[in-house]
Amino acid sequence: MARGISVVEDHGAQSTELLKALFPYSGNAVLLGMTGSPGAGKSTLVDQVAHAYRKQGKTIGIVAVDPTSPFSGGAILGDRIRMQSHHADPGIYIRSMATRGSLGGLASTTADVATVLDASGRDIVMIETVGVGQDEVDIVRLADVTVVVLVPGMGDDVQTIKAGIMEIADIFVINKSDREGAERVEREIRAMQAITPSRANAARAGGPEALAVRNDNWTPPIVKTVASTGAGTAELLAAIEKYRAYLQQDGRARARRIDNWRQRIAEMLRDALFQRVLAYYLSEGEATRYAAEVAEHKRDPYSLVEKIIDNLGKPE
Amino acid sequence: MARGISVVEDHGAQSTELLKALFPYSGNAVLLGMTGSPGAGKSTLVDQVAHAYRKQGKTIGIVAVDPTSPFSGGAILGDRIRMQSHHADPGIYIRSMATRGSLGGLASTTADVATVLDASGRDIVMIETVGVGQDEVDIVRLADVTVVVLVPGMGDDVQTIKAGIMEIADIFVINKSDREGAERVEREIRAMQAITPSRANAARAGGPEALAVRNDNWTPPIVKTVASTGAGTAELLAAIEKYRAYLQQDGRARARRIDNWRQRIAEMLRDALFQRVLAYYLSEGEATRYAAEVAEHKRDPYSLVEKIIDNLGKPE
Repeated sequence: MARGISVVEDHGAQSTELLKALFPYSGNAVLLGMTGSPGAGKSTLVDQVAHAYRKQGKTIGIVAVDPTSPFSGGAILGDRIRMQSHHADPGIYIRSMATRGSLGGLASTTADVATVLDASGRDIVMIETVGVGQDEVDIVRLADVTVVVLVPGMGDDVQTIKAGIMEIADIFVINKSDREGAERVEREIRAMQAITPSRANAARAGGPEALAVRNDNWTPPIVKTVASTGAGTAELLAAIEKYRAYLQQDGRARARRIDNWRQRIAEMLRDALFQRVLAYYLSEGEATRYAAEVAEHKRDPYSLVEKIIDNLGKPE
Repeated sequence: MARGISVVEDHGAQSTELLKALFPYSGNAVLLGMTGSPGAGKSTLVDQVAHAYRKQGKTIGIVAVDPTSPFSGGAILGDRIRMQSHHADPGIYIRSMATRGSLGGLASTTADVATVLDASGRDIVMIETVGVGQDEVDIVRLADVTVVVLVPGMGDDVQTIKAGIMEIADIFVINKSDREGAERVEREIRAMQAITPSRANAARAGGPEALAVRNDNWTPPIVKTVASTGAGTAELLAAIEKYRAYLQQDGRARARRIDNWRQRIAEMLRDALFQRVLAYYLSEGEATRYAAEVAEHKRDPYSLVEKIIDNLGKPE
């Protein structure tokens, strides 16, 4: 499994062949997305949830997406500390993913890694991201259930809770809920839920249609946890089960997976196209020469991009 | 200017024509990127910096990138509150950008909006983002000077300060530095600077070569501010000037702009290609049908993407 994941992360021809072969075995795991801002205690919460599922005899795969480092490959300290608590239990597998290179592919690669874990027979595949960038939103949107983790003490800035995060949440968690301000966060969520445009409106404004189907008659519940002690973990699992039961009604689960795949196929297509162009049409040397010409204002980049694309094969 | 920005945000054929026409007039503004986690007080700090530049007689354009909402278009409360303090001064222009649709283009669109502001003659163009997602890292990397804003009180989680954020910073700000823990944040930055691989190593590990040139002999300074009172703003402006003077040496400014353009041209190319494919090769109906086939496991998505691309024009 670990070797398979490495192959997938490396994106070679081998990667595609492996994924094609594994795809028929995927689709059985529950994909659980968990997102929240840095410092919200997501990792600890994910660990608690994983242990709780283990007690039910389920096997877990965790993909922890670690954004931000295009150069050195991710967090320096966090992962090492984390790995230690699980290494004794083969029923929990954690893979930390850093962003590989700065252009695209993060959401696709994460989804591919989740596919490997899913096809390997893991019952639950958890995808953990820092939920503030667009890439991270794309990632958690690929899950069956999306949990948004908030935390008291950041509420003095109106930017903290954003509309987009509100809209992707199927379940809210207020972690570190023993701290001052937990009630305030809860009130803020309720207030945002009251003023956020309804799902139906959001869908009409350009969102995928499936979304209107997805969360009609579902008001995301708010679960309070203290991940460091495990308080609230059972309630979170119950909320996840309740949401899954809701999804099973009226074809919602299928509508959601179709919508997710639309999104994912589009992203895969975009990445694959770009790789193809880089491989065949734009050498390193050319790219640097073009960049220098643009930087020196000898050429405008908009005409340049049109020229490169027009030379590909004149699609019309 | 506002109309021009709207045209650019809408991405039509008109947008490209406008950008081609404006490009020759761009390249004179100082591009200042400011990034930090939610709640770091970035907006207030950006406002203080803008006012300080105004006192020097400079004109300012601000692009505030508001991530997270693929559906409703961004923050609900933040912008309205913010706009009020500037509307009397035509020398400061703020544009809040939400992510438009969930697939790509955010970094490109932001850069295009900055180009409009630049071409319109603004002396300083500030780009403000929440700096935790890959898109946001891509955005601030396009600036001439990148300021990373940290804040005390989030330091109890090892995830808070990430290697990637360390590496994009030309200058650090500790905002809300009158709060407890400011010294601790400073120590953490220093500690991370000590263990972060040197720029030269980062470049060898796959980063753009220009980066090795860029920040050699430059240790990002740490400026303490209290944006709500304006304390430290003058020191921040001085640090920015010092970095700009450093950039002027040994062709660093040119190397950095070339590197930025390489990145940006690649992203423009990727987005344009994808738009072309969506327009000519993949109708809405087809996309939904394919997604349903994949969701039902009748088809694997990897072969599907290959098939679509192979039908484009067989590039080899």
